[in-house]
Amino acid sequence: MSINEFALIEQYFARHILKRGDVEIGIGDDCAIVIPPPNQRLAITTDTLVENTHFFSDIHPYDLGFKSVAVNLSDLAAMGAKPAWLTLALTLPHIKPDWLGTFSEGFFALANHYHTQLIGGDLTRGPLSVTVTAFGFLPVKKAMQRNQAQDGDLIYVTGQLGEAGLALKMLKAKQTSIPSSILMRLNRPEPKVSFGQALLDIAHACIDISDGLAQDLNHILKQSQKGAIIHVDALPIASLQNYVSADEAISLALTAGDDYELCFTIPAEQQSLLEEISKKHACPCTLIGRITSGTGLTLTLQNGSPYHANLSGFQHF
Amino acid sequence: MSINEFALIEQYFARHILKRGDVEIGIGDDCAIVIPPPNQRLAITTDTLVENTHFFSDIHPYDLGFKSVAVNLSDLAAMGAKPAWLTLALTLPHIKPDWLGTFSEGFFALANHYHTQLIGGDLTRGPLSVTVTAFGFLPVKKAMQRNQAQDGDLIYVTGQLGEAGLALKMLKAKQTSIPSSILMRLNRPEPKVSFGQALLDIAHACIDISDGLAQDLNHILKQSQKGAIIHVDALPIASLQNYVSADEAISLALTAGDDYELCFTIPAEQQSLLEEISKKHACPCTLIGRITSGTGLTLTLQNGSPYHANLSGFQHF
Repeated sequence: MSINEFALIEQYFARHILKRGDVEIGIGDDCAIVIPPPNQRLAITTDTLVENTHFFSDIHPYDLGFKSVAVNLSDLAAMGAKPAWLTLALTLPHIKPDWLGTFSEGFFALANHYHTQLIGGDLTRGPLSVTVTAFGFLPVKKAMQRNQAQDGDLIYVTGQLGEAGLALKMLKAKQTSIPSSILMRLNRPEPKVSFGQALLDIAHACIDISDGLAQDLNHILKQSQKGAIIHVDALPIASLQNYVSADEAISLALTAGDDYELCFTIPAEQQSLLEEISKKHACPCTLIGRITSGTGLTLTLQNGSPYHANLSGFQHF
Repeated sequence: MSINEFALIEQYFARHILKRGDVEIGIGDDCAIVIPPPNQRLAITTDTLVENTHFFSDIHPYDLGFKSVAVNLSDLAAMGAKPAWLTLALTLPHIKPDWLGTFSEGFFALANHYHTQLIGGDLTRGPLSVTVTAFGFLPVKKAMQRNQAQDGDLIYVTGQLGEAGLALKMLKAKQTSIPSSILMRLNRPEPKVSFGQALLDIAHACIDISDGLAQDLNHILKQSQKGAIIHVDALPIASLQNYVSADEAISLALTAGDDYELCFTIPAEQQSLLEEISKKHACPCTLIGRITSGTGLTLTLQNGSPYHANLSGFQHF
């Protein structure tokens, strides 16, 4: 990066960066040097957001900064890891100080909320994209892996599903009066950071819902070599029904993605403990089905009648 | 990433991935889980290569894969860190199996040579760019930082300078018969990994030369609050003089970048130890000047006469 770019990063980013005791050298040298905590594991994840693939060109830079952190912290949450450090590779077609200032405000609003430190980065010229790598700590015991679902496990999701997908649908239709509560779900997803850590004690498998419940749950099923029955009339989609039909709401929840809620499985005997944790972390959870010894995803109503979903027609960007 | 993309990554990448004992969970879950070594520091760096900014559209995918690892390992080398893990965020306009296969061969040729494991990634659709994050281990003692140069230190560089810049100049001029030894210096830089680790015991400050000696050495001078005298007739540029004038060779060495050699400073009393290390690692080093108590970079001949460089006219991509 050139000296001018370096100065810009210093100007727009350095003033926001909090200092953690476990960071010996942060931004400004060839590498960051950090001190991993003794007797813990390190969880590492990386996600890229690309213009016109993951967001529209007119996205507010605050939202882009916020979301680039959120999608990575959501991956840490799905493993039960406690966030610690971030790196940022930002590619920009040109340097606009206002844009960088607002982007960094969104970025650090979420990063600093979770006491994570930006320890390194690269600012390059090119088509707009943001790659964040996030680092978190995990106790030395089994993380919530995708391959740990057990026959008979109850399947839960956090929060509401499909709202981000609804926002995207409305944006694509150039709808002008999109409720801000719906729009915020697309633009500023809230990673379930503390709840994910609390789940470590009780959950078998966990994943964050970035590509739609059906596809993400399928990762768990495939890697655990199990099946699942999902009760579509139990899905947490009440907020969608003012805007779309019941069937469309179900389709959005199953396929639209970008929710960044957690989908996890627990043994039935942990149900009351889950309710306690859910209350303590103010993180509502909904029981939506159970793991079976079969394969693939079966959709039914709660009374057992089969449900035939029309899952086509919903695509990401 | 979609299931199809996931399958592609598995197909083209998984077969090359070596398994390290300190990786509990590699690619395929929400996060990688790794075991940092006890009582060591972790060095972390990230670099992005963007089409038409850092490489031409017709770059060979093998070279792009190789170089995306090399530029990051070079940053680890400049801190004296021992490489361990990598993540890869790859953005592609479309999935071409042959391209991905060849890219991964270049990527893993270098990654596996240094026994580093690819532990995570994100494959996205968009304009071609590659972001690699590299992780290495450091003993618990002062790393070679940019702010550690001392008055009187000798300044050295490894290898030859300016060859990558010459290759770029020839490519831009659409020259057809570029010697492959010159072209390889641009396309497949060799990070000074083991030599960087050996320097830990003797060097004060170190940086890798990615943006040209003048700019990179200036980072050291600025952060150390020191000056430097560089003897331009001592620069290791013999190989350039078959192709360009002596003055142009000096300009290429000082400003053209992409060399990925190391520039470092040592106290004079370590000179004989440096010679031993240089021989042991088959890594030639050249004494090019010394650190002063002043500010900025002064160019002279070895006899002390001032040298007035014309450093304009050399730009990166």
